[in-house]
Amino acid sequence: MAGALAHLHGRQTFLSFSKSHPGSPSSPAAFRPVTVAVGQSQSYWASIDAKIEDHLKKSIPIRPPVEVFEPMQYLTLSPPRTAASALCVAACELVGGHRDDAVAAASAVHLMHAAAFAHEHLPLTDRARPKLAVHHQYNPNIELLTGDGILPFGFELLAKSVDPARNNSDRVLRVIVEITRAVGSQGTVDGQYREFLCTQSDGDELCDAGWVEYVCEKKEGGLHACGAACGAILGGGNEEEIERLRKYGLYVGTMQGMLHGAGRNKEGTKEAAEKLRALALKELDIFSSRKTEPIASLVQANLVNA
Amino acid sequence: MAGALAHLHGRQTFLSFSKSHPGSPSSPAAFRPVTVAVGQSQSYWASIDAKIEDHLKKSIPIRPPVEVFEPMQYLTLSPPRTAASALCVAACELVGGHRDDAVAAASAVHLMHAAAFAHEHLPLTDRARPKLAVHHQYNPNIELLTGDGILPFGFELLAKSVDPARNNSDRVLRVIVEITRAVGSQGTVDGQYREFLCTQSDGDELCDAGWVEYVCEKKEGGLHACGAACGAILGGGNEEEIERLRKYGLYVGTMQGMLHGAGRNKEGTKEAAEKLRALALKELDIFSSRKTEPIASLVQANLVNA
Repeated sequence: MAGALAHLHGRQTFLSFSKSHPGSPSSPAAFRPVTVAVGQSQSYWASIDAKIEDHLKKSIPIRPPVEVFEPMQYLTLSPPRTAASALCVAACELVGGHRDDAVAAASAVHLMHAAAFAHEHLPLTDRARPKLAVHHQYNPNIELLTGDGILPFGFELLAKSVDPARNNSDRVLRVIVEITRAVGSQGTVDGQYREFLCTQSDGDELCDAGWVEYVCEKKEGGLHACGAACGAILGGGNEEEIERLRKYGLYVGTMQGMLHGAGRNKEGTKEAAEKLRALALKELDIFSSRKTEPIASLVQANLVNA
Repeated sequence: MAGALAHLHGRQTFLSFSKSHPGSPSSPAAFRPVTVAVGQSQSYWASIDAKIEDHLKKSIPIRPPVEVFEPMQYLTLSPPRTAASALCVAACELVGGHRDDAVAAASAVHLMHAAAFAHEHLPLTDRARPKLAVHHQYNPNIELLTGDGILPFGFELLAKSVDPARNNSDRVLRVIVEITRAVGSQGTVDGQYREFLCTQSDGDELCDAGWVEYVCEKKEGGLHACGAACGAILGGGNEEEIERLRKYGLYVGTMQGMLHGAGRNKEGTKEAAEKLRALALKELDIFSSRKTEPIASLVQANLVNA
């Protein structure tokens, strides 16, 4: 398990996306946590990551037909992680919910990210310049269709998490709407489209700092905002708590996209990310500082390269 | 509005998919009904089609950002129709439900079909032989991303159809699970994968009558089964009614796929389709024959080319 070490401005360090890819074709990559923070925070995020990984592996076992489920598990577990799914669990716990209330939604958030990642790297005939050279374990048709299967599966996981004993059907329905909006035409897809316009353009006029911020807000920002809001909804948070955590996620995700997204290190983006860090922490001020310690470590923690 | 005329075995005629594509780039195609049957059946299906079209157009108006919503509306309304979405409304009415109870689910079923159609015709680098020469209104990246936006939007439409006054949240959640399964890795996606294997192969050994039946069952069969089952669930049908209508949809859809799917006219498929017609009608025998008249016209009606 390897977290990436990110040093910025001396003591201030941020969680980073792991961009490495698994080498072995036969075994899907281990579900790598986004980062490993030190001490209590380290074990907190690691335990959440393990819980989500376990849920995903149980939900997508490799079973016949193997040609369907092997790529499905592989493309689910191999993409670089984001903190969006773990944030869903952390937000749920912060508002007083139980970890189990959020694990299906956290898994669904990860599945949306995995489907988007697979489609984003497909070799289409009008994608002359792939934005990132990623390892393709399967051929394009399989990666397209598997992404098409992963996305509805995420909604199935969610819908099936309804439990009469918990009386949570209204919350789950609300979470489904949250996720559809975050990943749809005005969320992730919009970010991918704008990013594509820049990566395929000859000049830099489309790709300034404003562009970086827009893309990061729609992609990483939107997914983290969704993860945090969904966790708060499922944990029984009130409307203020939900909206505060949504904004916290938006700032955290946008910041991470700015700092670690390929081709986004434009002039001024580091400074903008710094501002986002401060804004993110401010959103937590309605909660007691003792309770926010774990979730705030997403932007505060010193990281170790495990 | 043009329905396709299909004559088979003298008087026995079937509804057919319209394969024509709109010519005008600026105006999305009119939502063409799958068929126009004569007399009462004609107006029955036409009124359902109009209702679904109206719901879709209102749900996806062309608004800013136009570069997002124009392709979204176009790719929703332009693909060849299937009867799966209309069947959702007809099944709902057959079990005593109101048309309005099923229109969101019927629209979602159509959106799933539209997203699958867009992705199925993407020019990927390993798709040396496109299965059908279709008109591409937009470039591949837009068609990929728009499909990725249409799919979650279908689930959003559904989740938002929950209405406390109707107390329908459990039914809607069940319908979400039905749809995720029909379109996912063991449904539409599986059918697309198997179809791809054949269309890309040199020989015909993969593409026999058994292959045709499998592909049609997973694609058209699964979607029609899902449409009919969802309609019955939303209309308040009992478990037997739901399962009968699911099977009716499965037979109707598989039959239509066999008769009208490109490259599927293998030896024996017409005979197999004939058998499916009889099986389909048998599933309706628990309902009064007066009530089943409209829905049975899907496999019985004489068609006119309107």
